[in-house]
Amino acid sequence: MYVILVYDIGEKRVGKMLRLCRKYLNWIQNSVFEGEISEVRLKELILKAEKIMKKEEDDSLIVFSSPTNKFLDKQIIGKERSSIDVFL
Amino acid sequence: MYVILVYDIGEKRVGKMLRLCRKYLNWIQNSVFEGEISEVRLKELILKAEKIMKKEEDDSLIVFSSPTNKFLDKQIIGKERSSIDVFL
Repeated sequence: MYVILVYDIGEKRVGKMLRLCRKYLNWIQNSVFEGEISEVRLKELILKAEKIMKKEEDDSLIVFSSPTNKFLDKQIIGKERSSIDVFL
Repeated sequence: MYVILVYDIGEKRVGKMLRLCRKYLNWIQNSVFEGEISEVRLKELILKAEKIMKKEEDDSLIVFSSPTNKFLDKQIIGKERSSIDVFL
């Protein structure tokens, strides 16, 4: 399946969340990821993300998923995420 | 068409961008919006957003669009954006 994932979490947990999500998906913006992923791997990612998140501090994660990206168009205005960010 | 919009922009311009996007779409997370919008209105929104953005300061905007949200599933983990944020 094709997935778009966005998170909004406390600064302290951002680095950990970023590293986790990059193992499963492509990083396209500050807190936005996309990519092809199996249902099983997505469940695994969400479980691991929930362990990082602090819901009492209003952390949130949204996952849009679709069986295909055939009907999905993407338009990027401004800076594209590039490899200069690998230090994170 | 159905749209998911995410931005990553400098703090100084966040309020302006938020107010703009809320006129066209539903706010679902810090910098994430979604909703039904016509192609003409989407173009208008992007044009206005570009006037707010400073590309030299790495501002970025990503718009995913689809003719329908029939194939799109949404899962929210953690806090959902609510009306307590109307003061912004």
